[in-house]
Amino acid sequence: MSAYHPLNEQEAIEIARGLESIFTPGAHLVSREIGDGNLNLVFHISDPKEGSSLILKQALPYAKVVGESWPLTLDRARIESEALIQQGKLAPGLVPTVYKYDPELALTIMQDLSDHVIMRRGLIESGRYPLFAEHISTFLANTLFFTSDLGMNQQSKKLRVREFINPELCKITEDLIFDHPYTDADTNSFDEAIRDEAEALWNDGELHLEVALLREKFLTQAQALLHGDLHTGSIFIKPDSTQVIDPEFAYYGPMGFDIGAVIANLLLNFAARGHWDSDETARQEYRSYLIETIREIWIKFDAKFRSLWEKNGVDRISMTAPGYKDNYMNRLLQDTVGYAGSKMVRRIVGLAHVADIDQIPDPAAREHAQRLALSIGKELIKRNRKTAAIEDLIEVAQSAAASVKA
Amino acid sequence: MSAYHPLNEQEAIEIARGLESIFTPGAHLVSREIGDGNLNLVFHISDPKEGSSLILKQALPYAKVVGESWPLTLDRARIESEALIQQGKLAPGLVPTVYKYDPELALTIMQDLSDHVIMRRGLIESGRYPLFAEHISTFLANTLFFTSDLGMNQQSKKLRVREFINPELCKITEDLIFDHPYTDADTNSFDEAIRDEAEALWNDGELHLEVALLREKFLTQAQALLHGDLHTGSIFIKPDSTQVIDPEFAYYGPMGFDIGAVIANLLLNFAARGHWDSDETARQEYRSYLIETIREIWIKFDAKFRSLWEKNGVDRISMTAPGYKDNYMNRLLQDTVGYAGSKMVRRIVGLAHVADIDQIPDPAAREHAQRLALSIGKELIKRNRKTAAIEDLIEVAQSAAASVKA
Repeated sequence: MSAYHPLNEQEAIEIARGLESIFTPGAHLVSREIGDGNLNLVFHISDPKEGSSLILKQALPYAKVVGESWPLTLDRARIESEALIQQGKLAPGLVPTVYKYDPELALTIMQDLSDHVIMRRGLIESGRYPLFAEHISTFLANTLFFTSDLGMNQQSKKLRVREFINPELCKITEDLIFDHPYTDADTNSFDEAIRDEAEALWNDGELHLEVALLREKFLTQAQALLHGDLHTGSIFIKPDSTQVIDPEFAYYGPMGFDIGAVIANLLLNFAARGHWDSDETARQEYRSYLIETIREIWIKFDAKFRSLWEKNGVDRISMTAPGYKDNYMNRLLQDTVGYAGSKMVRRIVGLAHVADIDQIPDPAAREHAQRLALSIGKELIKRNRKTAAIEDLIEVAQSAAASVKA
Repeated sequence: MSAYHPLNEQEAIEIARGLESIFTPGAHLVSREIGDGNLNLVFHISDPKEGSSLILKQALPYAKVVGESWPLTLDRARIESEALIQQGKLAPGLVPTVYKYDPELALTIMQDLSDHVIMRRGLIESGRYPLFAEHISTFLANTLFFTSDLGMNQQSKKLRVREFINPELCKITEDLIFDHPYTDADTNSFDEAIRDEAEALWNDGELHLEVALLREKFLTQAQALLHGDLHTGSIFIKPDSTQVIDPEFAYYGPMGFDIGAVIANLLLNFAARGHWDSDETARQEYRSYLIETIREIWIKFDAKFRSLWEKNGVDRISMTAPGYKDNYMNRLLQDTVGYAGSKMVRRIVGLAHVADIDQIPDPAAREHAQRLALSIGKELIKRNRKTAAIEDLIEVAQSAAASVKA
């Protein structure tokens, strides 16, 4: 790691110039640093004349969060790059192509996706993505099935688990999702208007039991190689394309954590509607669109995962034991529901929030969205082990929307 | 690994001579090779004059099983030695002391325990070990608790998981315990007299579902650092001392697998009684002794584990969430019951048997023991998820003993 130093724009351009499959020799290249500077440097390098471009992402050896600087291993660049390469093989066209990875510089050079938008922004702007459920269900089914004991050599899988041990990034999830929101922790952050809700979370024993069980699975269940941070800010989208980015939290964990992350972020947008819609009809329609997308994601995921299992299963007894597949898929759904709830709660009272809700300028409308998101999130957590169908999750969201007063 | 070669007795003596804390310089040392030659060379080196001695265990790069030779990694010597060192720290006095580990030679030099007997032999000879439950429950509680997310730093635990990834040895368990006995596999081995029982196992869908669930946990649940092969042949014993040896199967897995292994092997001996007893009264008494030992192991384990959790717990929410500890301990018991059943079934119809039963010379008595062991094993597997107390397991054993005809 002795050669490591944060790159400046000129160095970034020189490195990019070496990718002759992208840039014509001698081209005039332009660089823009487009990262948020918290965890990584991100350079967009382009040849304006030819219209060719790429992204150069370099990990920084620290994380800036709420003004503080935490040291963070550069090994996450290896994990991100390796995960992108694995996901690209398993779900081609659904993650950016990796052109090059340089371990010394903790640098990944990859496909430029700037013709896409970040999905969170797209949803806030009431965009509709009719292929999203199809795409993300393929991404989830393929990456989760083929990295699990069901779909890959079980001895190679153990080596893969070893390769993706990711203590530092997992620690962030363990603290910020599965601990701090349920106690009066310094890292918590919430509007004073909902202090009653925060305090209720800290004192809800029934909720704590379910969170402890979900946390235990996150800590121990090496089920599949997860993306690990699959919210709508990790998805680049346009009507005909979905691209999953930023898998630096990748590790072997419970599949429901990834599926639940996608659904949670659709439900956070669901809770935030109203402010982002022109009128009540538009709100109802957009909410219906979100609910239909969630339903479709689970139904397609379930069908694709089962089909892969039928055709590509490697685990004998799990394929023949009567009832095992249904039992497995039902537990996946239950985990999905529990993790979706956990991911909603932390975005309201925990350290990191979502723009869908935080950017609502009207305090009353924002408070309503926050209370609604918490109501859905808590109920999903409490019901997770009783869930039998995706309709149960949808029913939770719809009845909370009907009962939480604006 | 270039220096690796199987040692001869003279080389073993020369290496042992280097341990000046054990042997007087210039002593006349004697070597005996006491391994079974299947997986390892084991040299007993002693100075008959001083009465000092040690064990030198060297891994062989293959396993001889039923005449065939499988290549096996020498890395298992590292895992065994590392596991012994960890267990020695966590459960002092309950594993042999490691004097030296040489990775190039895949060699561990450790305490000589030849004043103990192998517990399986001790039980066959109707030995009683009044301190065994106390010792083994301490071994289990300490090694499992302090290597889990409940009792050690959760980021260090992830590095420990990485260190103990053990694909080859896990594969043996996955095949021979959680697959082959439930299908007509070439590796299976059973007396023709119980072919009806073997075929019933291959066609019992209810059993297959439970085995698939237990197998899934063995494959995915990185709960604690297990011994991984904790049968009564891995325990050296005498009335005042218990020593757990041979942890080459060590890996991060479900705690119930270790606890279940101990109980299964006591129940295999339970099934074999009669031949080993002078009369019916002696049989009843010895069976009562075994049952009392099993009860005591679980009760003491449960109490010690909970006490460690109270005093040394590191996971906040798991310590405060109402009902979580009881939920956790009940799942441990259920896993214990399921794995105990799996370990019994494989010893009757699978590749590797136990002397308690195989050495019964009378075919009818042996057949009875086999049918009784299978009856208990299958019932434990089927009931595992419904178990609420150790008495449930005891009831299964006792009612099978009453109903399986001699």
